[in-house]
Amino acid sequence: MGIKLDPWGHLSISDYEKLFTQFGIEPIDSVIEKLPVKHYFFTRKIVFGHRDMEKWLDALKCGEKVVVLTGFMPSGHTHLGHLMVFEELKYLQQLNAHIHVAIADAEAYVVRRLSRRRAIKYGLEYIAHAIAWGLDPDRTIFYFQTNQSTDYYRLIQLFSRKTSLAEMEAIYGELSPAKIVAALTQAADILHPQLSSYGGYKYVLVPVGADQDPHIRLTRDIADRFSTELGLERPASMYHKFITGLDGNKMSSSRPEYAIFLLDDEESVKRKVLNALTGGRATAEEQRKLGGQPGKCSIYQLYMYLLSIDNKELLEVYNSCTSGKLLCGECKRKAYEKLAKVLSEHKKKYKKVVETGVLEKVVEKPSF
Amino acid sequence: MGIKLDPWGHLSISDYEKLFTQFGIEPIDSVIEKLPVKHYFFTRKIVFGHRDMEKWLDALKCGEKVVVLTGFMPSGHTHLGHLMVFEELKYLQQLNAHIHVAIADAEAYVVRRLSRRRAIKYGLEYIAHAIAWGLDPDRTIFYFQTNQSTDYYRLIQLFSRKTSLAEMEAIYGELSPAKIVAALTQAADILHPQLSSYGGYKYVLVPVGADQDPHIRLTRDIADRFSTELGLERPASMYHKFITGLDGNKMSSSRPEYAIFLLDDEESVKRKVLNALTGGRATAEEQRKLGGQPGKCSIYQLYMYLLSIDNKELLEVYNSCTSGKLLCGECKRKAYEKLAKVLSEHKKKYKKVVETGVLEKVVEKPSF
Repeated sequence: MGIKLDPWGHLSISDYEKLFTQFGIEPIDSVIEKLPVKHYFFTRKIVFGHRDMEKWLDALKCGEKVVVLTGFMPSGHTHLGHLMVFEELKYLQQLNAHIHVAIADAEAYVVRRLSRRRAIKYGLEYIAHAIAWGLDPDRTIFYFQTNQSTDYYRLIQLFSRKTSLAEMEAIYGELSPAKIVAALTQAADILHPQLSSYGGYKYVLVPVGADQDPHIRLTRDIADRFSTELGLERPASMYHKFITGLDGNKMSSSRPEYAIFLLDDEESVKRKVLNALTGGRATAEEQRKLGGQPGKCSIYQLYMYLLSIDNKELLEVYNSCTSGKLLCGECKRKAYEKLAKVLSEHKKKYKKVVETGVLEKVVEKPSF
Repeated sequence: MGIKLDPWGHLSISDYEKLFTQFGIEPIDSVIEKLPVKHYFFTRKIVFGHRDMEKWLDALKCGEKVVVLTGFMPSGHTHLGHLMVFEELKYLQQLNAHIHVAIADAEAYVVRRLSRRRAIKYGLEYIAHAIAWGLDPDRTIFYFQTNQSTDYYRLIQLFSRKTSLAEMEAIYGELSPAKIVAALTQAADILHPQLSSYGGYKYVLVPVGADQDPHIRLTRDIADRFSTELGLERPASMYHKFITGLDGNKMSSSRPEYAIFLLDDEESVKRKVLNALTGGRATAEEQRKLGGQPGKCSIYQLYMYLLSIDNKELLEVYNSCTSGKLLCGECKRKAYEKLAKVLSEHKKKYKKVVETGVLEKVVEKPSF
C-alpha cells in the first residue's frame, strides 16, 4: 500500500479504498466531529477508520458503560510502536472509558513460540511502560491471556462450536491447533467484558491496526452467533496506522537497529536516529533545490506521531523540509534531542513504577 | 469385531489382536495377579487390557499418590453402561485411589451440539447416580469441563502449540475448531491432576473403552512433549468392554428402547427386558435340542456384567442355557426380577442423594 502524506499525514482515500469499500471500515471523519477532545491522532488521521465507533461515542456521552480493549503480543521489548497505543489508551481513558489490556502470552507461546518465561517478562514490561506513560492503573484492567477466569475460558470453548475451519483458514492461512486456539482466545479477549461476571453488558471499542481487521470481523461474526445464547454484541473498532521503523518498514523488535525501544540508552537512540532512512536527496545541493520528501522519511514520522504535537510546529518542520531549508542532518539532531527528552522523562517514570511495586498490585503473573 | 464369549466372557486374543500387537495395549492378565482385591470385572475380562497399569498398582502399593480420572459425556440420561463405570470407580476407590470425574459438558456442547442447559442437567444426574452407587464424595472430585481453574485451561492453551492438525485428523477424521478444542480439553482432563496446584505429581489411571485409546495415545504423546517444560508424565489406562444394549449393539441413550436407564420405571424395564434380543433359537423345541447361545444374548450380558456377581451362579445360567434347559422367557423374567431389585434399591439411594442436597456440596455448576 503506497502511503502518500500531506503535512498531517492524511491518507488519500485511494490508499485505503479497499478497506473502506470492500470491508466496510468507515472513514474516521464523521467520528472526529463527535470527539469531545480532538486528539492529534485523529486530526492527523493516524487513526483513519472505524466500525461502529459513533455508537460507542454515543454510549460514552450518555454515561453508559464503555470499555476499550486492546492486546499486546509480548514478543520483545517495548518500543515506540507500543507507546503510540499507550497514548491512544491514555486519551480514551481521559474521555472516561475503562481500559482492558490483554497480554497475549498464550499467543506468544503457541504461535510465536516464545518461552513462557520470556513472554511473561515482556508482558510485565509493557504494563509498566503503559502505567509510566500515564495509563491510570485504577481504571485499567491488565491481564495475561493464560491467567484469566473460568468464564473467559468457557467462551473459548463455546466459541469453538460456531466457527469453521474454512473461515479461519481464510483469515490465518495454513492452520494449526495453535492458531485456532489463539484465534478463539482473541475473540474471548474482545467479548468477555460483556459477561455478567465482568460487570455485564458494555460497549467495547478495540483499537487495532488495519491488518488486524480480519480478527475483528471474525469476532463480530462470533458475537452475532452468540447474541441470543449469551447476549453478546458486536464490538466497535478503530484503525490506526503504525509508526514506521527507522528503515521505513513497520517498527518491530525483530529489527532492533530500526526500532526505538523505550529503555534504549541515549547513545543507541542517537546512533539509530542519525542512521535513519530519510526522504533526503542524493546531495545537499540537490536537496536545497528540490526540497526533502517527508512522505518517505522515517524521521518525519517521529515528528508527526510523537515529537511535534503542536500543529504549527509540525507544519514548520514540513515546510522547512520541502522548501529545502532544513537538511536531514540538522533535522535528525533536532529529532534526537526532542526524543531523548521524551524518553528520559519516561524512563524516570518507568523506574518509579517498577521500584514502587505497582506491578504486583495491578496484575497477577501466571503461575507457569 | 466379532466377540466370542466363554462363560466368563473371556475374549479370545484374536478379537483384540490388533489392539494388543499393533497399538501396544497389554492384556490384563499380568495385572490381575497384582490386584489386592480381584473384582469380577477383571476376572471376567470385562476389563481386558491396559497400558502401564502395573506401574500404577505399584505406586498404589507403595502408598504414593494415585488417582483415577474418567469423563462422562452428558448427552442423555444415565443408563447401565454408565453404572458399569461407576462400579469400576467404586472398586478403584476401595483400593485407595482418589477419583476425579470430569463431566464433558464442553464436548457435549461443542461436538454433540447439546444445549448448555441439557448438558449441565445430565451431568448433575450422572454425579448423583455415581454417589448413589457408592462413590464416596469425600474422596472424589467431580467437575464440569467448562468450570475449571485457570491452570487447567492454561494446559489447553499450551498443549495447542505441540500438536498438529495431521495427528488430530488421524484420530478424529474431518476436523473442526470444536473437535480440536474438545481433544485438547480431554488431554487437560487427564493430565491436570499432576499440576502442583492440583496437589502435585501423582500416578493417573484412566479407565476407558478400547475405542477411546486414540485419545489416550494422543494424551501420552502430549505428556512426553511437556515432560521437561511442565514435568508431566504419561497416564496409565485400562480398557473395558461395554455392556451391550438390549438389541445387541452398544447401549446408548440415542436408542432408548434398548437401553436400561437407572430411573426407568418398572414397567419400562420389564417391557425392554422381555423384548430384548437373546441367543435363543427359532423354536422352543430347537432350543431344547441345541441349547441357547449366551455369546449372542443381551440378557446374558446383564447377568455377566451386573446380575450374577457370583461366578457359580453365572456358570449355572450359562450351563442351563447352553444345555437347553433354561428357555429365554423364563431367563428374561429372572433377569428382570434381579434387575428390578437392583434398580429399586439404587433409586432409593439416588432419591436420598438428590433430596439431601449433596450435589450442591460436591460440585459447582457452570454459571452459563
